[in-house]
Amino acid sequence: MIINCVAYEEGRRLCDIDVSEVAVHLAHPHRFVWVALHDPDADELATFQEVFGLHELAVEDALAGHQRPKVEEYGDALFVVTQMMSALQEEIQFGQLAIFAGPGYVLSVRQHHHRGFTDVRHRCEREPELLKQGPAFVLYALMDVVVDRYFPILESLEAELESIEEQMFVKGNARTSLKRLYQLKRSIMCVKHAVNPLSEASAHLFGGRVPALCKGTQDYFRDVYDHLHRIEAAVDTIRETITTAIQVNLAMIAIDEGEVQKRLASWAAIFAVATILAGVWGMNFTHMPELDWRMGYPMALGAMGLCCGALYRHFRRAGWL
Amino acid sequence: MIINCVAYEEGRRLCDIDVSEVAVHLAHPHRFVWVALHDPDADELATFQEVFGLHELAVEDALAGHQRPKVEEYGDALFVVTQMMSALQEEIQFGQLAIFAGPGYVLSVRQHHHRGFTDVRHRCEREPELLKQGPAFVLYALMDVVVDRYFPILESLEAELESIEEQMFVKGNARTSLKRLYQLKRSIMCVKHAVNPLSEASAHLFGGRVPALCKGTQDYFRDVYDHLHRIEAAVDTIRETITTAIQVNLAMIAIDEGEVQKRLASWAAIFAVATILAGVWGMNFTHMPELDWRMGYPMALGAMGLCCGALYRHFRRAGWL
Amino acid sequence: MIINCVAYEEGRRLCDIDVSEVAVHLAHPHRFVWVALHDPDADELATFQEVFGLHELAVEDALAGHQRPKVEEYGDALFVVTQMMSALQEEIQFGQLAIFAGPGYVLSVRQHHHRGFTDVRHRCEREPELLKQGPAFVLYALMDVVVDRYFPILESLEAELESIEEQMFVKGNARTSLKRLYQLKRSIMCVKHAVNPLSEASAHLFGGRVPALCKGTQDYFRDVYDHLHRIEAAVDTIRETITTAIQVNLAMIAIDEGEVQKRLASWAAIFAVATILAGVWGMNFTHMPELDWRMGYPMALGAMGLCCGALYRHFRRAGWL
Amino acid sequence: MIINCVAYEEGRRLCDIDVSEVAVHLAHPHRFVWVALHDPDADELATFQEVFGLHELAVEDALAGHQRPKVEEYGDALFVVTQMMSALQEEIQFGQLAIFAGPGYVLSVRQHHHRGFTDVRHRCEREPELLKQGPAFVLYALMDVVVDRYFPILESLEAELESIEEQMFVKGNARTSLKRLYQLKRSIMCVKHAVNPLSEASAHLFGGRVPALCKGTQDYFRDVYDHLHRIEAAVDTIRETITTAIQVNLAMIAIDEGEVQKRLASWAAIFAVATILAGVWGMNFTHMPELDWRMGYPMALGAMGLCCGALYRHFRRAGWL
Amino acid sequence: MIINCVAYEEGRRLCDIDVSEVAVHLAHPHRFVWVALHDPDADELATFQEVFGLHELAVEDALAGHQRPKVEEYGDALFVVTQMMSALQEEIQFGQLAIFAGPGYVLSVRQHHHRGFTDVRHRCEREPELLKQGPAFVLYALMDVVVDRYFPILESLEAELESIEEQMFVKGNARTSLKRLYQLKRSIMCVKHAVNPLSEASAHLFGGRVPALCKGTQDYFRDVYDHLHRIEAAVDTIRETITTAIQVNLAMIAIDEGEVQKRLASWAAIFAVATILAGVWGMNFTHMPELDWRMGYPMALGAMGLCCGALYRHFRRAGWL
Repeated sequence: MIINCVAYEEGRRLCDIDVSEVAVHLAHPHRFVWVALHDPDADELATFQEVFGLHELAVEDALAGHQRPKVEEYGDALFVVTQMMSALQEEIQFGQLAIFAGPGYVLSVRQHHHRGFTDVRHRCEREPELLKQGPAFVLYALMDVVVDRYFPILESLEAELESIEEQMFVKGNARTSLKRLYQLKRSIMCVKHAVNPLSEASAHLFGGRVPALCKGTQDYFRDVYDHLHRIEAAVDTIRETITTAIQVNLAMIAIDEGEVQKRLASWAAIFAVATILAGVWGMNFTHMPELDWRMGYPMALGAMGLCCGALYRHFRRAGWL
Repeated sequence: MIINCVAYEEGRRLCDIDVSEVAVHLAHPHRFVWVALHDPDADELATFQEVFGLHELAVEDALAGHQRPKVEEYGDALFVVTQMMSALQEEIQFGQLAIFAGPGYVLSVRQHHHRGFTDVRHRCEREPELLKQGPAFVLYALMDVVVDRYFPILESLEAELESIEEQMFVKGNARTSLKRLYQLKRSIMCVKHAVNPLSEASAHLFGGRVPALCKGTQDYFRDVYDHLHRIEAAVDTIRETITTAIQVNLAMIAIDEGEVQKRLASWAAIFAVATILAGVWGMNFTHMPELDWRMGYPMALGAMGLCCGALYRHFRRAGWL
Repeated sequence: MIINCVAYEEGRRLCDIDVSEVAVHLAHPHRFVWVALHDPDADELATFQEVFGLHELAVEDALAGHQRPKVEEYGDALFVVTQMMSALQEEIQFGQLAIFAGPGYVLSVRQHHHRGFTDVRHRCEREPELLKQGPAFVLYALMDVVVDRYFPILESLEAELESIEEQMFVKGNARTSLKRLYQLKRSIMCVKHAVNPLSEASAHLFGGRVPALCKGTQDYFRDVYDHLHRIEAAVDTIRETITTAIQVNLAMIAIDEGEVQKRLASWAAIFAVATILAGVWGMNFTHMPELDWRMGYPMALGAMGLCCGALYRHFRRAGWL
Repeated sequence: MIINCVAYEEGRRLCDIDVSEVAVHLAHPHRFVWVALHDPDADELATFQEVFGLHELAVEDALAGHQRPKVEEYGDALFVVTQMMSALQEEIQFGQLAIFAGPGYVLSVRQHHHRGFTDVRHRCEREPELLKQGPAFVLYALMDVVVDRYFPILESLEAELESIEEQMFVKGNARTSLKRLYQLKRSIMCVKHAVNPLSEASAHLFGGRVPALCKGTQDYFRDVYDHLHRIEAAVDTIRETITTAIQVNLAMIAIDEGEVQKRLASWAAIFAVATILAGVWGMNFTHMPELDWRMGYPMALGAMGLCCGALYRHFRRAGWL
Repeated sequence: MIINCVAYEEGRRLCDIDVSEVAVHLAHPHRFVWVALHDPDADELATFQEVFGLHELAVEDALAGHQRPKVEEYGDALFVVTQMMSALQEEIQFGQLAIFAGPGYVLSVRQHHHRGFTDVRHRCEREPELLKQGPAFVLYALMDVVVDRYFPILESLEAELESIEEQMFVKGNARTSLKRLYQLKRSIMCVKHAVNPLSEASAHLFGGRVPALCKGTQDYFRDVYDHLHRIEAAVDTIRETITTAIQVNLAMIAIDEGEVQKRLASWAAIFAVATILAGVWGMNFTHMPELDWRMGYPMALGAMGLCCGALYRHFRRAGWL
């Protein structure tokens, strides 16, 4: 589906145009065309492939969805694949934004994701001074917003981790904590695989040898790279913390078990003493004077109570009960 | 065994040829010969070694099978070793495809693996425009299909991991889960050693300094590299997840054990109380009035039942039973 | 808030100046202006942005706070972001110091942190020979003091680790030790993310290709780098030690549990023997001669005592009690 | 001890020569001398040091034994240190082969190892075409055979790992498994330290900038490097598998413990019920009608048996017994 | 404190000189001055700073002690910081040796360490041929001896590890083993931080681009580097082995616990059977014929003994006792 197909001149919006008019505008030196597609079928994309001269392999990747993020040069054009993420009811929904940027055109292909980029277009149109820099700036603006949308995801993962941490040192939550930690680990791995390759790839858009298209906008791409690097660091922290948290959890389980064991041992001792005393006075010796005492029975019960009580106090003090 | 030996001109199939005719076709500048061997004996390979001028060490590797994947340059020729994988009844079957590609020829040597590449040949022959690019394109087509066949393997491993995950948080499955995780780890290590060296090696076929043969087909090899990189990332995720899963499993075992212990402790307490009461009324004191009551015995049994019931409810509420 | 705005000539303080006068001093070849801001609002910073010609992206980063430490070149100017740390009641308080340094000016922007840099200014002013080297030296002096303030943080973390270690091999502290280790791990991760990127970035300020501004002060920046490297090494040691400590803790918990189990087993055995003996003499056989002995009962009690005592000694010797 | 000292011309063996004649043959442009020493004393080596002009530090290393594998250039000569390994009754025996190769000579110094290289010499002499390439080829031949002898070691370690794996999921083997895993880990670390530095060092003998001596034999050294890389990969797999195996072992121990605990709990419950019943009928109430029944006693025993049997079946079904 | 201050010409000792004479000797082209200081105060060092023209930052580092090992170039001079280690009653004592080497002088500053380098000086003076190479050779000689003194430390750590290993598979040593492993880990981390940075830094003293001072002595520095690399490998082995050992220890603890549990369970079963039997014959049924048998009591005791004995044998065979 074609969302937008607009021609720009000197950073200013000229008009919405039809696919058939694209070639005309491409011929103008100071103009560029910015096309946005959403879940296009092969034919739609094929039209633009021809007019922009896109490489077959890139077009395949754009259509396939769920590719590895990357930045590839095809002659003087750039092909960028990014993963889109958005939180959807405790799950992370993944999509793909593939961007073709060459002299005179930007073509963005969004796949399997509901959230569009019209806000980016509007923001760009409000700043013609910047938009004048052409396709490279649009490429930056799109990458920037894709990356900026990673931050809320990251924050929700960090919040989840903190919530697990609070629960972690409280008894009886081990099973849930572990399940959530495992789930979190899975999510963070997905985020990592969306972020790391993009960060690595975007490092080629500034410094050293840079694609001709990005010459004048290096500082912007460095900014994107910087954001990605920040996310990477946060992802690494979460990963390492999860590992530690699982280990700590295991230790907490062992501690809890040890405490239950101590309690069990204490009660067993108390009961055992009562049992022994009852056994002793249940022996059938002929000469057991206390058996004939008037107060023998209550005294026996009292003795049993006393012993048990003393043991109880002892274990209480030792922290076993 | 010679599977195929065909001469091509300008991307079009000329004819099946005999080994003895190969040298004739090699002399034509716009032709190339594409030979496919399967588990060849040393003599078969020796014939082609002579006519194509293959290096002895490369031929040894091609014959040996189970080599490390690699891309080697011998003069203006390339020698590529890849590992083939296919799922065979829960096991991964490994084979080797060694490819010699030089000016005017491609020779593929398949070892210890049942699945051939005739489909690749047919696909290539249907696209003479691409096949016109010569041996490098054939090399790409073969590598591409070898790598594409890795994906189903990977998916089956991911499916196995997910099936273990589902089982993991259910009690009583620890032993099987561990066995399967261990097995999965072993498999993933094998896949890793098939993929990583190839990925590393194929990075030399595009960008920077490239073998002369691959000059015009760099974008294709970058595509192969990209697929390999995607597989590598997936392999890494599985590996890291297995490690976490084993730790979580260990913790789950400890939790289960703790719960069994609590149940044991609860029943022990209930039984102990009943034992003590029976012991008390089994004592031989002369003056134990309740012993002579008419309803003494049923009341005693009732008291024992009540105590045990009260304890049972208590432990039930505490979640120990 | 503007803390200071001073012009320097040949390393000597000229005078405090107003924002409006900055442009005048910038024009003088041997002068430079050193401005210090604290939590500035966007307008304050905008004034300086214009007069110094700062890049918009850098200004955004300086205002935002909590950026990743970095060193960026914008034309012939440098933009450095560092994280400030200070210990605040067992917590580490983080702030940001962003420094813009270009020909003729240094602008430091401190965010979310209470501790200023007037001491640095005074120290610099006391050494005009060094200050004569201009903005690069001021940049060094600021970075140096930021990094030097990391050391007390590190020492407090090391002290915490040592205090946990002392506690670790003492019984019954496992829960607290783990909590503290986990907390320490969290802190050290934060320190790591403040230090590592800065260390990496500052490596570009000496050796090989160096920004023009830093040409004459390379040795100083190497010194900063060296300090950062030292901190990195210490951070790595703490991280690795925490991992080991958690594992050791887990093992200590298991050992403690084992000892409790042994004690439990010993007492259970002692009680069981007494119970059996009482049970034996409670049997109702007609012919049990010892039951009629005068001293039967005391002898029975004595026998029970002896058995229990012998067992007690046995377990004592075995180290179970 | 001098094992061999032979002069070669154009790849063909000339004659065994004496130490004193070496200098004569060195002068001939198309000849080279190949000397093999075994555990030489300092004097023997000193003779050759003088005639070949070997560097003092290299000679020291050759004499010392147990050096780190390495490839060093001294002027136009190469000094290669490799570790020899052979399996000796479940232990790996380590030795050292140091090779000096320069224009006109190869000197191999074997230390602390029983297995020699006469087979290499014979193989080389049978292929004068290859041997014609001079000292570099001899160097390759020696390195190749040293590396080839690593494979059986590796296979025995893999066999050991597989044998442990088979044992691992069987109960009651944990202690032995752990001991063997630990031992295996130690062995594999030794192999790693013999292989990795050599692999790294041998990478300098082909590709990019190469010592003049190896110019024509690069493909051969790449082959050695390739073998070393294969061993490295196998070593890494074993190492990672050992780590996983130890974790799995720990989990298996916990599972076994849990099962013992369940069995213990089951029997305790069965015994407790019998004890309670016996206790109840041992109570001294006056009115316990069943006590006077004719069949009271056998019925009581039957009731006890029934209860115990029912519990037994219950636990059996639950998989606790 | 000045330990030595000697002038050398052409590798031969000229005479002990006073600080004031240093400048004179510096002027001679073929002479150099070798000064050794021990825990100098700031003034002593300042004298030499002036005469040799040392950089302030380097002097600060030399005075401070406990710096990170490094090799820094200041113009045509080198500044090397190494850590000294010596074993002192089970503890490693750390010190620092800072070396300034420039054209015409070597100045070594030893801090916080008792062991000097007069033996190095004597050895050097006995080999004027080598010493003739000037300050770079002295620098090498000092670094070489510092590194050589690491080996005994390493050996003592390896011996400690082996002694722990022997103890590890013996029961009841877990607590001590863990404590010692933890301590060893701490020590090895310190050694690592003394060795790794030095190894990294010394790699700049040979191969590729080398400081002018070291041009003629590259082979020597490569030798130092080689030794450091060997130590690094050993340190890594120890670290990895410690990690494995802790895991194995944890598993051994679990195994021991499991065995204690089995023993406990066995005895509990034996006692429970005896208790039940005594309970049965303690029941008050009227018709229990065996109670009236003459041999009833001894037969009962015999039956109890038989049951317990049978159980004992059973558990013995099962390996539980």
